[in-house]
Amino acid sequence: MPYSRKVPRIFQSGKRQPAGELDLIRRIRERAGRSGGGEVRLGIGDDCALLRPRSGEELAITTDLSIAGRHFQLAWHPPEAVGHRTLARGLSDLAAMGALPVAAFLSLGLPRELAASRKSKARNQSFSSWFDKFLDGFLALADATGAPLAGGDLAESPIFVADIVLIGAVRRGRALLRSGARPGDLLYVTGTLGGAAAGLGRLTDWAAQQPQSQTDRTPRPPRTLESALAPHLYPQPRLAQGQSLAGHKAATAALDISDGLSTDLAHLCEESRVAAEIDAASLPIYPGATLEQALHGGEDYELLFTAPPATRLPRSIAGVTVTRIGRIVRKNVRRPQITLLTAQGRQPLEPKGWEHFA
Amino acid sequence: MPYSRKVPRIFQSGKRQPAGELDLIRRIRERAGRSGGGEVRLGIGDDCALLRPRSGEELAITTDLSIAGRHFQLAWHPPEAVGHRTLARGLSDLAAMGALPVAAFLSLGLPRELAASRKSKARNQSFSSWFDKFLDGFLALADATGAPLAGGDLAESPIFVADIVLIGAVRRGRALLRSGARPGDLLYVTGTLGGAAAGLGRLTDWAAQQPQSQTDRTPRPPRTLESALAPHLYPQPRLAQGQSLAGHKAATAALDISDGLSTDLAHLCEESRVAAEIDAASLPIYPGATLEQALHGGEDYELLFTAPPATRLPRSIAGVTVTRIGRIVRKNVRRPQITLLTAQGRQPLEPKGWEHFA
Repeated sequence: MPYSRKVPRIFQSGKRQPAGELDLIRRIRERAGRSGGGEVRLGIGDDCALLRPRSGEELAITTDLSIAGRHFQLAWHPPEAVGHRTLARGLSDLAAMGALPVAAFLSLGLPRELAASRKSKARNQSFSSWFDKFLDGFLALADATGAPLAGGDLAESPIFVADIVLIGAVRRGRALLRSGARPGDLLYVTGTLGGAAAGLGRLTDWAAQQPQSQTDRTPRPPRTLESALAPHLYPQPRLAQGQSLAGHKAATAALDISDGLSTDLAHLCEESRVAAEIDAASLPIYPGATLEQALHGGEDYELLFTAPPATRLPRSIAGVTVTRIGRIVRKNVRRPQITLLTAQGRQPLEPKGWEHFA
Repeated sequence: MPYSRKVPRIFQSGKRQPAGELDLIRRIRERAGRSGGGEVRLGIGDDCALLRPRSGEELAITTDLSIAGRHFQLAWHPPEAVGHRTLARGLSDLAAMGALPVAAFLSLGLPRELAASRKSKARNQSFSSWFDKFLDGFLALADATGAPLAGGDLAESPIFVADIVLIGAVRRGRALLRSGARPGDLLYVTGTLGGAAAGLGRLTDWAAQQPQSQTDRTPRPPRTLESALAPHLYPQPRLAQGQSLAGHKAATAALDISDGLSTDLAHLCEESRVAAEIDAASLPIYPGATLEQALHGGEDYELLFTAPPATRLPRSIAGVTVTRIGRIVRKNVRRPQITLLTAQGRQPLEPKGWEHFA
């Protein structure tokens, strides 16, 4: 039942302020209420949430885990960014299908120290807990994208783990699938590539220079790094772009680049039973990122899609550029699944995403 | 994207058999296919699954975490039971709303040793991994209840964590809510109470007598304990009973008993803004369980519901007994939220569920 059981009772310990079960749920419920509405008939508080789908709609559903130490580091990542990224991962999957967000659900395993707020006796001030800041980042993106938090679960856990569930709506038969690419189709990406990987590099460099992290401190990289870190800390799911492609029946196949271009393009080729060629010179590399980061760096959350040559695509959709980066070719045992074309000639491109950061 | 990223690559180590990302996903996908169908238009393999709701339907959605060491113990609980219980928790929330399962999604954080199978050189035999046995239990219940596994996520994790997402369908306006109970309504439960708590006690007693658990062994309680442990290890979600109550508009409010009768009845009273009385003598206590276990023991997953006095309820629904255990009364500052009536008189019943096992 959403936010109603297996919740830690967190008692006063040291100077930390207790955050009990009811308190945590009340905070989530009050704040989630702000972004509610639409197709959500019943939100947080019962055994299930209730949705009332509109006729002619299909629902797209995705779940994504975020585990401390695996998908992010408590010592490096600001809690607001963890909240943003948790939700962005799910929204990006909706974007890849061309779906409009209808409701979000969040299952949280929370160590008790992350739920406790601090109180300063000297000034009688209360400081937000890590969890409050996580919610700040999560709900800011939920508000901005119209994805109401309609339920979830909360449990005490030895490590932080969040599972984000997103439900989106798309007109029947219009969802963008991975399986629709055909030989002759051209290959496109939205935005730029490699920015998240480059940002992660800057973040780890910064973190390595910091003194040993203290229990009561949350990481706060300097403002001078903000723009360099933004693609990694605050990726923007391409919802408007995906909806536009689905709405205009412009794309034959699509997915989001979460593992890295080389790995995600391999997924598309497998599901569509085709091969692909990429023109290295055409790749929209994020300023300061390397070709390697653009090819294999994960978590850019741009859309990778295909369209027939006759389809005229705009240079940008809702303010985000669209770049042609290659083409789909027939699958053939004598050629690699993905070929990279450079000034030096042709070379096979192996899927090398994600594992770079494993 | 369902089962397609952030997956451990598990390499050979010692005598364990490697279970790679693709292998794990293929195993899930092949086995999940068996229970697919219905409203699921697209299952595992794309960025999202796609559902096609029927007209006149509302969708009920719930998520529930199961964390090793918190909701179960790797050293005590057979993996098949962990799989069963993971799914049962979500199904029970659907049952409480009167909903029919449409699709299940499973997000799994998996330590690599649980994914690896063993190979015996002597006999050239392969032994199932903990994860395979977990899937056995999960998919057996999915098949039995018509809940196809339509997607999820998979990540390597330092501890085992599973988030189950269930989507169910219920006729518009017919869902059973916690908020509908009115003074004068009678209070009912399905099945028996306390069996899960009594079973957990037997299981921990048995586990305490076992030699230190070995890495390659999974717990296997003796057959003589099977029936005593069943309510704890293999709880049965009351789907047919919930659907019948919703279909006949028989209940005014309902929820499932996951935290314990005293705690869940308090939830119902809060959401309905009423108070309640329980007749101790009428409680259907599981054979061998105590009154305390029946009042406060969690995880029985029976339904607790209310109905007006004029409503005639059958003695059993789909083979499960229905027992009247008390009544709803007006909320009043001068009386406790829940009163227990015994031969010794009236006494307040405090919510003491879940924390017993915290």
